[in-house]
Amino acid sequence: MQYRQFFAEFLGTFVMILLINGISAQQTLDVGKDKSWLAISFGNGLAVLVAICISGHVSGAHLNPAVTLTFWAYSGFPRQKVLMYITAQISGAFSGAAVLYSMIEPAVDMFDNGDRQILGPKGTAGIFATYPPFYVGTFTAVSSEVIGTALLLLLIMVTGHPNNMPFCTMQGVMIAAGLMAISLGLGYTSGFSLNPARDLGPRLFTAVAGWGPGVFSVANYYSFIPSFAPIFGALLGGFCYKLFFDPCDPPVL
Amino acid sequence: MQYRQFFAEFLGTFVMILLINGISAQQTLDVGKDKSWLAISFGNGLAVLVAICISGHVSGAHLNPAVTLTFWAYSGFPRQKVLMYITAQISGAFSGAAVLYSMIEPAVDMFDNGDRQILGPKGTAGIFATYPPFYVGTFTAVSSEVIGTALLLLLIMVTGHPNNMPFCTMQGVMIAAGLMAISLGLGYTSGFSLNPARDLGPRLFTAVAGWGPGVFSVANYYSFIPSFAPIFGALLGGFCYKLFFDPCDPPVL
Amino acid sequence: MQYRQFFAEFLGTFVMILLINGISAQQTLDVGKDKSWLAISFGNGLAVLVAICISGHVSGAHLNPAVTLTFWAYSGFPRQKVLMYITAQISGAFSGAAVLYSMIEPAVDMFDNGDRQILGPKGTAGIFATYPPFYVGTFTAVSSEVIGTALLLLLIMVTGHPNNMPFCTMQGVMIAAGLMAISLGLGYTSGFSLNPARDLGPRLFTAVAGWGPGVFSVANYYSFIPSFAPIFGALLGGFCYKLFFDPCDPPVL
Amino acid sequence: MQYRQFFAEFLGTFVMILLINGISAQQTLDVGKDKSWLAISFGNGLAVLVAICISGHVSGAHLNPAVTLTFWAYSGFPRQKVLMYITAQISGAFSGAAVLYSMIEPAVDMFDNGDRQILGPKGTAGIFATYPPFYVGTFTAVSSEVIGTALLLLLIMVTGHPNNMPFCTMQGVMIAAGLMAISLGLGYTSGFSLNPARDLGPRLFTAVAGWGPGVFSVANYYSFIPSFAPIFGALLGGFCYKLFFDPCDPPVL
Repeated sequence: MQYRQFFAEFLGTFVMILLINGISAQQTLDVGKDKSWLAISFGNGLAVLVAICISGHVSGAHLNPAVTLTFWAYSGFPRQKVLMYITAQISGAFSGAAVLYSMIEPAVDMFDNGDRQILGPKGTAGIFATYPPFYVGTFTAVSSEVIGTALLLLLIMVTGHPNNMPFCTMQGVMIAAGLMAISLGLGYTSGFSLNPARDLGPRLFTAVAGWGPGVFSVANYYSFIPSFAPIFGALLGGFCYKLFFDPCDPPVL
Repeated sequence: MQYRQFFAEFLGTFVMILLINGISAQQTLDVGKDKSWLAISFGNGLAVLVAICISGHVSGAHLNPAVTLTFWAYSGFPRQKVLMYITAQISGAFSGAAVLYSMIEPAVDMFDNGDRQILGPKGTAGIFATYPPFYVGTFTAVSSEVIGTALLLLLIMVTGHPNNMPFCTMQGVMIAAGLMAISLGLGYTSGFSLNPARDLGPRLFTAVAGWGPGVFSVANYYSFIPSFAPIFGALLGGFCYKLFFDPCDPPVL
Repeated sequence: MQYRQFFAEFLGTFVMILLINGISAQQTLDVGKDKSWLAISFGNGLAVLVAICISGHVSGAHLNPAVTLTFWAYSGFPRQKVLMYITAQISGAFSGAAVLYSMIEPAVDMFDNGDRQILGPKGTAGIFATYPPFYVGTFTAVSSEVIGTALLLLLIMVTGHPNNMPFCTMQGVMIAAGLMAISLGLGYTSGFSLNPARDLGPRLFTAVAGWGPGVFSVANYYSFIPSFAPIFGALLGGFCYKLFFDPCDPPVL
Repeated sequence: MQYRQFFAEFLGTFVMILLINGISAQQTLDVGKDKSWLAISFGNGLAVLVAICISGHVSGAHLNPAVTLTFWAYSGFPRQKVLMYITAQISGAFSGAAVLYSMIEPAVDMFDNGDRQILGPKGTAGIFATYPPFYVGTFTAVSSEVIGTALLLLLIMVTGHPNNMPFCTMQGVMIAAGLMAISLGLGYTSGFSLNPARDLGPRLFTAVAGWGPGVFSVANYYSFIPSFAPIFGALLGGFCYKLFFDPCDPPVL
């Protein structure tokens, strides 16, 4: 039973990262087609929807250590499963990035002539993990990750409330729609991680696959932000839900 | 109980404006990506959907003084709550704009070198409140706001009618879809407010945050149009619904 | 009762044309934003969805003379209502175009300096009715309208079949999705009318509003194609449904 | 009964290919509008949704030999129907391509001056079947088709599991959403076939319609990849489902 939950989290995160990194790769490498923030946002939302659909009925489709920790803190998710879930998520994300790279390696070579760079016009590490856009300061990036993840968790918990019909019967679709909205509205102000596994797994992969340890230290150790800020944001969102929504009266409408 | 409804309206409008203004900011500031009216329309619709999902089962998700006033006029919404709702909406919109600005301030500085302008190629006040596109006259802007809001209210009330299955079980989604359609079809002919709180709250914020009182007086006091025209439009839409749809026979199909 | 059905068809077609023509106007006149066939297709589908939502539970949301005639021919729609429905549809479409024009007239004047032209780089009649793209011959345009409308009617009738769960509970959404797909796949090969009222009503309006009778005769009397070809297509689609789908066995899955 | 299933598979695949090839034609030929991978992905997903809606309640909407073979291998689809389904799918795809070509022939002539070429800037065979983008090697193309189809089949089978509520009541929509995500994330790394009939039927048509037998041999017999790799991918996806998801415990959430 437990191994099946592990596998579902692993496979869901694997699929999610395979598709999310794939979209970034298309935007970075496919020079003949237009770049579009709408395509990135729409595709990321759909990737999460597919991952929820695949893993939801087995593991609950956390797919995100920040979600798992928040469910443990506020919703009684059993403590002894937390580490298993987070391991599945990070290793699934690592594997998704690895499989994608095995597919697109020739295209990356053609793009950068085999000289793997992290940032810059020929930088390709951004296909896998998140890096700051040029105008983002530390405060902007942290607050973007915290607020975005808080909003995501609020949405996840609100759509899980049985009073919230009909949204709670289409929770997966609402989470995907919310992610598209958060990405369109706030995503460009940081690397838009919202998920430590989504960032850490592929970053680990790039560190061993040729980009080197600089992926962690570049831009003043930016990598700490997408790995830790989402956890604070998620706890904030869960707290906000507990405070105002949980002890909810019957609906007013 | 009341304080929870206040909070739900506040939080719903806060989230809606945070995301809607965020999308405008991305379109204005993120020079590397393409500008797209489709992205704006799609993102605005999703932002409203998220806000409805968060606040709907507690406060009914008005999120808009024009909606609150129309529900009071035609649907028996209690008069003593009207002021509370409108206060929550405007202060929520103000706060959403403020939080977004705290995040994107460095990007705005980089865009306009710290010289806040309202209109023009380096104008940034349009990130928060609505301003007329160059070819819009007063009549166009007023009629656009009136007709757009009338259509929105008609849609809100029609999808609330229990005969209108299955649309009334997915009212939130239909409202979001309708907003996308109204934005794509009519939005560009004015600043596309449709909501006094969506315009007034962020405009107040810009007035105190560095753009100055000109945000109200610019373009022949344009700011009056998005603050008042939607109310007339909403009442018109509600009246039209009452006249033709409310005393409805059983469906024909 | 009858007057309410008339009004619902009128209002539904009015809203549909107001939004559809509005999208065309944005694409034609809003020079600062990108042109996008995706935005047109997505917006047209949403406009039809909104119109179905508003009129469906009162009049059945035909919104299209070709649909009304096909329902009369194959589904027992009463003959004495046919003329009423078609009158409502064409006058609703005429009014939608008129209201939109009253809003955007200054923008049209700025675009063509007040010299109304039908075709060409400064032509604006295409905002309202459909005109052939330069590479389309008569056969292409006729077959595009016939096949597109046949496909639309097949979809409408298939989603009305009670065996076809769960699609028949979301018929309006499926019709909107189908229209988006038909528009993306076939729409550009003609003016993409699929609906005599959608074309004839706004074309009549342009004839009296300043573009002159040339809107009917231009391009070898192209206007006959979008007014009549959809009717043959609709009857073909209905016939195809009757032949193969109607006497349907229980589902196989 | 059988002839109706044959017809449903034929018509479903016909409609799917008519629309999918139509979108490729618009992107290739309609030089005035923007090219967009988002429009292709969105349109392809909608085309599959329409095809599922039309044929699903009669034939189960396989529309794809790889799906039929996987259902035979893992889900008890009767062996004696396999050949009938595959024949219907390939002939439907052939016919869809033929009907589209009869409509757009003048536009193709205008694009290439009547000189039909397979690849290159004036190549048009890519409207119908899939060809490798310039940077794709054999391994990339094979793995893209295998992984993409495995993901598709996993999604089809997971959404068919009765425990997986509410996704299993909207299986068609989820499959369309999944196809959009796969197309956005992985589609550009091969020609994005995922379906032997989608590729082989239109390719056969182009071979006889003027492009010649080179459509099979070009690019080192690339045509073998989209015809056979999806079958292995589909069986892999089905195997993965059988192994981990089928003997499923009650949901955990």
